[in-house]
Amino acid sequence: MEKEKTNVDATTPLLDTIDSPADLRKLPAERLPQVCAELRSFLINSLSSHPGHFASSMGAVELTVALHYVFNTPYDRIVWDVGHQAYCHKLLTGRRDAFSTNRTLGGLSGFPSPKESEYDTFTAGHASNSISAGLGMAVAASVHKDEPHRNVVAVIGDASISGGLAFEGLNNAANSNSDLLIILNDNDMSIDRNVGSLNSYLAHLTSSKGYNDLRYSLAGILRKYNLITDIGKGRITRFNNSLKSLINHEQNIFEGLNIRYFGPFDGNDVATVVKVLNDIKDFKGPRILHLRTTKGKGFLPAEKDPATWHAPGIFDPATGERPQESPEKPPKYQDIFGSTLVEIADSHPEVVGITAAMPSGTSMNKLAEKYPERTFDVGISEGHAVTFSGGLAKDGMKPFVAIYSSFLQRAYSHIIHDVAIEGLPVTFCIDRAGLVGEDGPTHHGVFDLAYLRSIPGMTIAAPRNGDELRRLMHTSLTLDGPIAIRYPRGRAKNKLSGTIEHVTIGKGVRIKDGNDLAILTIGTVADDTTDAIKQAEHDTGKSIAHYDMRFVKPLDSDILTEVARKRCPIITIEDGTVNGGMGSAVLEWLADYFNSSEREETAMPRLIRMGVPDRFISQGTPDQLHHLCGFDAEGIYKTIKSILK
Amino acid sequence: MEKEKTNVDATTPLLDTIDSPADLRKLPAERLPQVCAELRSFLINSLSSHPGHFASSMGAVELTVALHYVFNTPYDRIVWDVGHQAYCHKLLTGRRDAFSTNRTLGGLSGFPSPKESEYDTFTAGHASNSISAGLGMAVAASVHKDEPHRNVVAVIGDASISGGLAFEGLNNAANSNSDLLIILNDNDMSIDRNVGSLNSYLAHLTSSKGYNDLRYSLAGILRKYNLITDIGKGRITRFNNSLKSLINHEQNIFEGLNIRYFGPFDGNDVATVVKVLNDIKDFKGPRILHLRTTKGKGFLPAEKDPATWHAPGIFDPATGERPQESPEKPPKYQDIFGSTLVEIADSHPEVVGITAAMPSGTSMNKLAEKYPERTFDVGISEGHAVTFSGGLAKDGMKPFVAIYSSFLQRAYSHIIHDVAIEGLPVTFCIDRAGLVGEDGPTHHGVFDLAYLRSIPGMTIAAPRNGDELRRLMHTSLTLDGPIAIRYPRGRAKNKLSGTIEHVTIGKGVRIKDGNDLAILTIGTVADDTTDAIKQAEHDTGKSIAHYDMRFVKPLDSDILTEVARKRCPIITIEDGTVNGGMGSAVLEWLADYFNSSEREETAMPRLIRMGVPDRFISQGTPDQLHHLCGFDAEGIYKTIKSILK
Repeated sequence: MEKEKTNVDATTPLLDTIDSPADLRKLPAERLPQVCAELRSFLINSLSSHPGHFASSMGAVELTVALHYVFNTPYDRIVWDVGHQAYCHKLLTGRRDAFSTNRTLGGLSGFPSPKESEYDTFTAGHASNSISAGLGMAVAASVHKDEPHRNVVAVIGDASISGGLAFEGLNNAANSNSDLLIILNDNDMSIDRNVGSLNSYLAHLTSSKGYNDLRYSLAGILRKYNLITDIGKGRITRFNNSLKSLINHEQNIFEGLNIRYFGPFDGNDVATVVKVLNDIKDFKGPRILHLRTTKGKGFLPAEKDPATWHAPGIFDPATGERPQESPEKPPKYQDIFGSTLVEIADSHPEVVGITAAMPSGTSMNKLAEKYPERTFDVGISEGHAVTFSGGLAKDGMKPFVAIYSSFLQRAYSHIIHDVAIEGLPVTFCIDRAGLVGEDGPTHHGVFDLAYLRSIPGMTIAAPRNGDELRRLMHTSLTLDGPIAIRYPRGRAKNKLSGTIEHVTIGKGVRIKDGNDLAILTIGTVADDTTDAIKQAEHDTGKSIAHYDMRFVKPLDSDILTEVARKRCPIITIEDGTVNGGMGSAVLEWLADYFNSSEREETAMPRLIRMGVPDRFISQGTPDQLHHLCGFDAEGIYKTIKSILK
Repeated sequence: MEKEKTNVDATTPLLDTIDSPADLRKLPAERLPQVCAELRSFLINSLSSHPGHFASSMGAVELTVALHYVFNTPYDRIVWDVGHQAYCHKLLTGRRDAFSTNRTLGGLSGFPSPKESEYDTFTAGHASNSISAGLGMAVAASVHKDEPHRNVVAVIGDASISGGLAFEGLNNAANSNSDLLIILNDNDMSIDRNVGSLNSYLAHLTSSKGYNDLRYSLAGILRKYNLITDIGKGRITRFNNSLKSLINHEQNIFEGLNIRYFGPFDGNDVATVVKVLNDIKDFKGPRILHLRTTKGKGFLPAEKDPATWHAPGIFDPATGERPQESPEKPPKYQDIFGSTLVEIADSHPEVVGITAAMPSGTSMNKLAEKYPERTFDVGISEGHAVTFSGGLAKDGMKPFVAIYSSFLQRAYSHIIHDVAIEGLPVTFCIDRAGLVGEDGPTHHGVFDLAYLRSIPGMTIAAPRNGDELRRLMHTSLTLDGPIAIRYPRGRAKNKLSGTIEHVTIGKGVRIKDGNDLAILTIGTVADDTTDAIKQAEHDTGKSIAHYDMRFVKPLDSDILTEVARKRCPIITIEDGTVNGGMGSAVLEWLADYFNSSEREETAMPRLIRMGVPDRFISQGTPDQLHHLCGFDAEGIYKTIKSILK
């Protein structure tokens, strides 16, 4: 690859001159370490005041630079897996000036987003999809025979590769003759420390280093003498096999699957990564390049504690000091979950906790601290988490499964097949339900009420405050069947009261009575509703009833009968999709109610469903997004007024 | 293991004396081949007149006998993966007399079903869940420390093990210290011939036979001298490693994942299987036993063509002859899909077909015959099928993904994240939608309308007949976004007309007008509805309107406005869950319609939702099940009458 001679010296800032990867590719290779250093400084400076995901991108600096340096992006496709690591990719692809808007309303997405840039080839919010998506692109490239050759590179982390989807992708990529290059960015971390035997395996892969070095050198020689293009997949595989028998190595899992493996190499040495990529990029067939990187690389506090520095919030760019959280604040919902689970486990030896690579994000680590043998972090394996829980429940355990709402979508089938059909007593604690904020459309947990509600035998609840979350968790022990309890990201509005009573399954709460309008809420939107009602009653002189339904399934027939008899309009409010959600369930109930023969003459009341409309919602603060969707206090007030006018 | 001396000789039938596995365990081991032979005869005789899954169970005869012979079932747990292979298990566990009711309404389930027998430990309709569920049981067993040791055996096929869930299970089992025994029943088949590199790998595992034989013999010696129980997992692993370095073998993928591997052995030799199971059953830690079996074993026609004999229907037990299908019958929906796809592919080079281990079940094999390079069978990997299609669509292809409705549940998250968020033009052809009949609750495709409907940007359609399926498939090419077309198992009522016109997205059809009642149907329930309307109009003298909505999303506003203005009651009918399905969508539309200000004074009409009620529906013929759920012609007629009375 020829490079233009540039006139800059080592003291001239380079990053400011790079508005696209084409600019990067004009630099001589020896300037790349400086680009990397400048990218790190940029990340530290920017993210210290504009919080985002930090440690993953710090570890992927060299990889990102090398990829855009070696490959002809955007014509060549780079498919990132989980966009946490893709900040440098954004900085090198014309989004440096906009980077301070990262993760804010109207700003850059925190993940690769094809809507945002042609360099962002695929949605990358949920883990483990890059190999499958990349294989699709590689196959598409091979069909477009009249177009120039296109390289497709799928980047995947060592946590993501343990997900079932990644394995399905590998198993199919290996079986195809597509020229897909898979880069395993191995930092021995996801958000938390990795688990699973594949990860142990990867950690020990240095044992085969002698063999790999030898094979890699031979591949280099072949390439030097232009022998690579003459050698098809079958040929070089046989070549490898005979090499194997020569040097008595251990067989590699990936090679067992018929994917050529190269590595491990130091992924934080940009010269190495550029060289290896150049060496192997024109090889035919599926290949995997294993790079070892350090999460948080280049910022000592992050290197030492990469889990905390996954998304550290604001910090001092010089010292890494982070502002102390005020102990006076009410607890986070996740922490209420975590401490309540410990409380329950103390008196119930059959209680176990399961999470999928989110022990700190769900606060399942509280149980792990006290009862490590009763806590299971299964890694990025939501389907397994649920089926495993089904097996536990079948033989007498009481599993609490804590998974984020949007990630639990991965286990939808498993909830039906491996839990609900047999009515097994699994408690699903669904964190990050509703609009989650800055992580945007891939992470909003807005579908759960709709998709869970059609599953027979599923109980579905959502607490309106922290005390209710505790009560619901305790109550779930009394159920002989599955229950889902969904609660939002962030803090409760108030501290816990300390008292625990069981609630009755399927029973809501009348928060206040009224006759001109009835409002039914589920979950934490109750607070904003209370505020809106106060204001609206004051302004209109009308009286408004408010019920916290508490359960979406079964619905509280007593409340709904009471409401139906008022013959006033009804508003339902939920932090979830209005298509198929609680409002829809209430409509179904009312339609059935007014169809029973003795009530034939009475007409259905008006019903207004408030919640998340039928489109993907962007990122922003939760308050901004509630406002955008019209169900913050102001939006609720306006709707009330329009009905009571 | 001591066995009672029995008084039977080789000519006395044994099967009749086995009412539970305890009876089997009384036999001396040398009588087991006779039990196997009798089981095969029983299967051939019974299934030739009472159709069911045939070839899988024929291949698993020896495995099943050996498992119940060696393990103390039901205290020890056998977890089957996909119940096709579990017929002999049913025959040995007290269900021989009931076996002729297999797969019929009120009879035995065609799959293991915990509701049916304590020997059936877990739901086993969808592939790949046995390792995860078995791991849950093994962990539960280790927690119940005061109870006697319990063995847990997870059986999995070589097709199922390529599913992502199985890999997640393996990755976690390997990382645990649970005493889970995994049996890989490897017949190189799922329903169709297997694909994927893991399967190629398994097929070549004999290359390591020398090593495995040696290691197995050594394990036997250890056991003989009672050394096994003294050797923990770590110890024997190290022992294996040093053995490895002695004999220059190739490393095994499973051993790479830290699961002890034994095999491959002949799984159709009952003496071998019993011996191996006895040898390894008390080993500690996760283990995998690899058995090679022949699908259809013992019935030559099935051995020769196992795909056809997966579920052959009735046949001549002597010759294997199967009744010819009448060429006069209308085509199956799957065949209309298959031939239409070829028709479309002829003129659209960007069209590709994807299925997940169901090329013959979906008739995707028609495309594969003509355009093999544009057809992708990804194996049991529904998630990958969808994400791969997203990658293909992103780079200019037009993928048609054909998957059964209940299996597509596995890809729910992938539809949202990898297709819908970017609005990629993937056509989902959802076969086996609605109540599928004999396969029962795990296979009914009744949730799709509900779970797809809340996904923004998703178009959802269902044809009322074969011509409409063709039209919808052709129409999907005009859409710049995802579309789901769902259609049932079985035959269309009429032959194709041969004409193709595009339909308009979101537009339904007024089948007949009327003023006293309006019926809105989706899909093939239109026919029974037409019959019911004729009868009801005749009997009541009233006039009934009937609309085929054709699209559940977007709903046809013109039709719904027309219906709303009639001010008559409305019935919605769908072969899917009434919770969250089309009826619910119509309710939402009507609620919104009557909320628009200019219509405030007009009341919502009565609306009756007909469809699948909120419980898991058993097996039976589709007609029986439609009757059970009240939406066959008779049920519809009755509902009409009750409204018009």
